[in-house]
Amino acid sequence: MHGTRYLILADGEFGPLTSKTANSVIRYLPDRIVGVLDRVHAGRTIQDVLGFGGSTPVVATMREGLAFKPDAILIGIAPMGGRMPEEWRAWLLEAIDAGCSLWSGLHTFLADDPALAARARERGVAIHDLRRAPADLPVSSGKAKEVEPFVILTVGTDCNVGKMTAQLQITRLLNERGLRTRFVATGQTGIMIEGWGIAVDAVVADFIGGAAEWLVLEGSKGADIVLVEGQGSLNHPGYSGVTCGLLHGSCPDALILCHQATREFIGDYRKASWLKIPPLSEYVRLYETVAGFVHPTRTIGVALNTFDMTEPAARAACEAASKETGLPAVDPVRFDPTPLVDAVVTARNAYLASRALS
Amino acid sequence: MHGTRYLILADGEFGPLTSKTANSVIRYLPDRIVGVLDRVHAGRTIQDVLGFGGSTPVVATMREGLAFKPDAILIGIAPMGGRMPEEWRAWLLEAIDAGCSLWSGLHTFLADDPALAARARERGVAIHDLRRAPADLPVSSGKAKEVEPFVILTVGTDCNVGKMTAQLQITRLLNERGLRTRFVATGQTGIMIEGWGIAVDAVVADFIGGAAEWLVLEGSKGADIVLVEGQGSLNHPGYSGVTCGLLHGSCPDALILCHQATREFIGDYRKASWLKIPPLSEYVRLYETVAGFVHPTRTIGVALNTFDMTEPAARAACEAASKETGLPAVDPVRFDPTPLVDAVVTARNAYLASRALS
Repeated sequence: MHGTRYLILADGEFGPLTSKTANSVIRYLPDRIVGVLDRVHAGRTIQDVLGFGGSTPVVATMREGLAFKPDAILIGIAPMGGRMPEEWRAWLLEAIDAGCSLWSGLHTFLADDPALAARARERGVAIHDLRRAPADLPVSSGKAKEVEPFVILTVGTDCNVGKMTAQLQITRLLNERGLRTRFVATGQTGIMIEGWGIAVDAVVADFIGGAAEWLVLEGSKGADIVLVEGQGSLNHPGYSGVTCGLLHGSCPDALILCHQATREFIGDYRKASWLKIPPLSEYVRLYETVAGFVHPTRTIGVALNTFDMTEPAARAACEAASKETGLPAVDPVRFDPTPLVDAVVTARNAYLASRALS
Repeated sequence: MHGTRYLILADGEFGPLTSKTANSVIRYLPDRIVGVLDRVHAGRTIQDVLGFGGSTPVVATMREGLAFKPDAILIGIAPMGGRMPEEWRAWLLEAIDAGCSLWSGLHTFLADDPALAARARERGVAIHDLRRAPADLPVSSGKAKEVEPFVILTVGTDCNVGKMTAQLQITRLLNERGLRTRFVATGQTGIMIEGWGIAVDAVVADFIGGAAEWLVLEGSKGADIVLVEGQGSLNHPGYSGVTCGLLHGSCPDALILCHQATREFIGDYRKASWLKIPPLSEYVRLYETVAGFVHPTRTIGVALNTFDMTEPAARAACEAASKETGLPAVDPVRFDPTPLVDAVVTARNAYLASRALS
């Protein structure tokens, strides 16, 4: 997919907190985005809507978007449950007619839509359903415990708090220090950015751990450090199964805890009062305890998402998180991620020393 | 399926600990089993092999089994990963030719096998793949927390320790006390016995919690007590994701901890030394802590599986488990399950009293 120019479909949901896939692709592949289709913000630039992303336009129709000559349409929003809104079919058929391939991370596979599949076949364009799980995944057998590299998993207080972004922000810096660092994608957005991976939330439930194990074994080849993209949260009523399977299947040596600093309630739920997000220190204990039943691990840092705070408030939030947990805490997008990078290097050195002794 | 007469296919794996599905169906639907196909134990009776099940024969060929006029073939073993051994196809085709329907809980669906599907269509017989998940499952939204009945989930120290059996053993006794008690099946064997349910280990990972929620809502209709069949173990490297999703999606008010008393290591793993089963009291703390992040719960009893112990050793194991946990502990198959039944009634009364106060 490298070099592909994308028009992103994010109709009605384009925004800093709602269009997670779109935003991450814009952040990490900015030169390959020709526009965003969203009727709400049409006429503005991506920068106007997100606060980053430059002067790339937001358009109201597929026709306008196709005028920028994309090679592919990228589905940039992930509705709850992951299903395709009915009205998109006409747009996607129009795009296929113009020769565009389709990239989607929805749970409902575009290639299973008879109209889209038939038109794509006629036109000779590909439909890439990134959430389609590989056949013949193994049941986890604990092999991830034995890989050579230092394995780090991001864990979170909720969905959509910055678990993938935290790792992408430190990957480059670690590589610059001469540590061969590999990001391992476990969700559709990470797969779009990295070009490979498995959407672990889309595998058959018995194989979550096995998918995580396969990814760690694959990502370990030629790497000193493996950064495994975390998913969901261990106290998320809908998605905790994915989180738990990933935690046990990937056997991380260390965890980075991710949190959106202003969020008070588990976010995907309308009944905001149901599940209050407990203190960060309780999450540290929860994740370390549950992981430790399979493979010992410890939390080495906190990545805060402070996008909706003033700069002084954001700095105060980082200090408070650091004080509460006794760990380095930083917003790795907004501020210098060096404290997290240092924490990784220090923890890896301790890990190498303990392995040399044993 | 009620009234159907089954020939059970358990070739090469028929035995007290290996053929979990076969054994449970034999225990709870004894009058509807005409025989077991297993070349290893052919010529013996089910009683000879399992220690229960009466004089029903074990046969070596499909032809011999069909002579007992079954209506259906029931796949009675669940190989790791759930896939169908290649050699069964000829047997199943022979059974279809004789007019038998097929009941399977394998991950690989029999109806997706072109040869079996075509022959079944020609012959007009049904293929029931019990692990095929319903379409359009919801993401869990916490509704299970609000149901009227008292909800109990069995949790375990490992797979295949007796989580389903413990509940089936107390269901009848609770009903005899005038409490309308509903068993909710979450695995293929439970579905075979109960006639409905969802195999939660076979749903797409994002929907484990949603499947559990749907089952609890459905099972709650007209019930005073809902017994949700547990799956896997929260420290099982391969299956913990299913366990965690079920724990959070079903929002149990109480837990019954299940353990096979002689088992020392998490069992599905060849490398027996990898994961030692920790003490029961640690499991109590683990399950209550993780569940409590979503819905408060407490462990009210221990169900021990002592099938491979002498009677004095089994009684001693129950006493030791009770002493360690401070909870009633009994093997509900081998001994009188009344202590567990009493624990359920007491816990439900406390629950009703606390609801009346709030």
